[in-house]
Amino acid sequence: MGAYPGSEKERRISADTLKKVVQSIFERCGMSAEDAGLLTETLVVADLRGVHSHGVMRVPNYVRRLQTGVNPKGRPRVVKDTGAALVVDGGNSMGQIGSTFAMRQVIERARTTGVAVVAVGGSNHCGAMAYYTMMALPEDMIGLATTNALPTMAPWGGIDRILGINPLSVAIPAGEEIPIVYDAAFSYSARGKIEVYHQKGLQIPSTWAFDAEGRPTTDPAKALEGLLQPIGEYKGTSLALIMGILSAVLSGASYGTELGDLEKGAKAGQDGHFFMALRIAAFEDVARFKHRVDGIIRQIRHGRKAPGFDRIYSPGELEAETEIKYRKEGIPLNEDTLKGIITAAEQLGVDASLIRS
Amino acid sequence: MGAYPGSEKERRISADTLKKVVQSIFERCGMSAEDAGLLTETLVVADLRGVHSHGVMRVPNYVRRLQTGVNPKGRPRVVKDTGAALVVDGGNSMGQIGSTFAMRQVIERARTTGVAVVAVGGSNHCGAMAYYTMMALPEDMIGLATTNALPTMAPWGGIDRILGINPLSVAIPAGEEIPIVYDAAFSYSARGKIEVYHQKGLQIPSTWAFDAEGRPTTDPAKALEGLLQPIGEYKGTSLALIMGILSAVLSGASYGTELGDLEKGAKAGQDGHFFMALRIAAFEDVARFKHRVDGIIRQIRHGRKAPGFDRIYSPGELEAETEIKYRKEGIPLNEDTLKGIITAAEQLGVDASLIRS
Repeated sequence: MGAYPGSEKERRISADTLKKVVQSIFERCGMSAEDAGLLTETLVVADLRGVHSHGVMRVPNYVRRLQTGVNPKGRPRVVKDTGAALVVDGGNSMGQIGSTFAMRQVIERARTTGVAVVAVGGSNHCGAMAYYTMMALPEDMIGLATTNALPTMAPWGGIDRILGINPLSVAIPAGEEIPIVYDAAFSYSARGKIEVYHQKGLQIPSTWAFDAEGRPTTDPAKALEGLLQPIGEYKGTSLALIMGILSAVLSGASYGTELGDLEKGAKAGQDGHFFMALRIAAFEDVARFKHRVDGIIRQIRHGRKAPGFDRIYSPGELEAETEIKYRKEGIPLNEDTLKGIITAAEQLGVDASLIRS
Repeated sequence: MGAYPGSEKERRISADTLKKVVQSIFERCGMSAEDAGLLTETLVVADLRGVHSHGVMRVPNYVRRLQTGVNPKGRPRVVKDTGAALVVDGGNSMGQIGSTFAMRQVIERARTTGVAVVAVGGSNHCGAMAYYTMMALPEDMIGLATTNALPTMAPWGGIDRILGINPLSVAIPAGEEIPIVYDAAFSYSARGKIEVYHQKGLQIPSTWAFDAEGRPTTDPAKALEGLLQPIGEYKGTSLALIMGILSAVLSGASYGTELGDLEKGAKAGQDGHFFMALRIAAFEDVARFKHRVDGIIRQIRHGRKAPGFDRIYSPGELEAETEIKYRKEGIPLNEDTLKGIITAAEQLGVDASLIRS
């Protein structure tokens, strides 16, 4: 969640308005209307769910990528196909294009094989992973997605930035309740959050980052020069390592430092991801499965609360509620994000008057 | 790892000696020689890898289970088979019997389908998950395993013990290096460790447990009445929840509190697990894959160290080195563990003279 401190300078923009402007920007970068629409949709859905770090604040960076390496007309394709295992080459398209293609492939395949997986290479940054796992939900399937990321952590006990925070998302259908949708990295916090604390002159909790020498730090400046802390010490770094191998080594993509670094960014067309779809009916009666998931969610909701909590959320519940709210009230976007989009629009000759204040 | 403080009263027992006595105990409980041998092997392998919490210290508890509910002659069988997705009913056998059977099934299936998964129901406690994922390694496959466990955590923000620590194991083949073998729960620590600190009158770190009211505690007595802390707050509890659903709901087994509680233990024949095998050749050239994994392991090993660390391990490296050492020098077992085995042997009329001091 993008629950950053202080969001004073925000304006509410409707999802439809935002989509119009952002899609035009991506079209002007050379993407087809269909691809630009899909890329825009993934970003706006992230904003609607309150995950602003993976929303339209990425537009200026994505425009730069489309102008300097990523192929706006790149087409993903299946390059290997063995039973329930696929390999997709993203064709240096935006990561969202190859990832959506790949997830559709495994959903189709799992209709007959019960489970299917795909390793995606030749790709780029693909945004919030939950977009892909949630594609499985209306099909009564469980979706799983992970991706390689630029290195921002060290293995446990080390101080070299050689490990990505390599997030994992899993979506599980429910019946009457909101589906379970988990999407998080194996770092304790995120660089984006630390940057916001830095801008505001605030200290960060000591569990978020190490300085460059590997000591826990509360100084966001030192944190940004240093390392993100993993969750659960060696557990978090090991899980990130595994997700990186599934995403980048199975697919022949670039792992860790091969992909690039924070200073230079990711090399175009070298990122990798991993997706899985599990058809529930291949295992269990779908109604019974969903009924039991509902029960698990309700047991969570109705449990006794710890000090300082007035509510217990199941994974994805807060994001789903945020989406309902933001669809009605508009998406709160800060001035930096809006300025970035407006500047990109102006440079590309796109009319941004809809989102000007 | 079972790196508990103070292991003064230990004796070294060779793996072969230990196996002879333990296998005889399980045979005397009514298991076939083959099943008793397999169950014994899984426990002794855990001890050899230094994971004593899942080793032969479990013998007295397993004997009790075999005498009060678990079917020593239970036979697992495939009850559903759809392409690359299987469901196995453990037939109320010891969890190790059904889990080994299930993992063999997905390894066989993945030879043609590239990937295969199995949900196992009708099962019991199955020991260390790494035993099953490591079965994939000689087949040039990646193994993944998870299981449901008795609830010892609360969802993040709650204080009801309704969530298991539901461990995940993943094993990934390497070339010249030791394969990557990860196996850990989504709790920060383990009840077994807290019990040892309690016995020794030591305080525990404040990140290990909550008291019954959900406050972090350093008092092991309060911790044992309370809750294990997850790794990474809601991340750890969400991941444990997901592993529990994959293991227990896909297979129709008992989830969380349905399985039982710490006081009464698990209900016999109601546990569930989940296994996956991914054949590397279905995705990537095997030699290239292994060469790259070797490179990742070496990059970890040769990285700069954080303060207080003189070595950085890749996942499973320490356990593999421990196994080499203990195979040569014998397995160090404490008096409590040995006494438990000897008492069980005596009650069953098994000769335990080999492990008497």
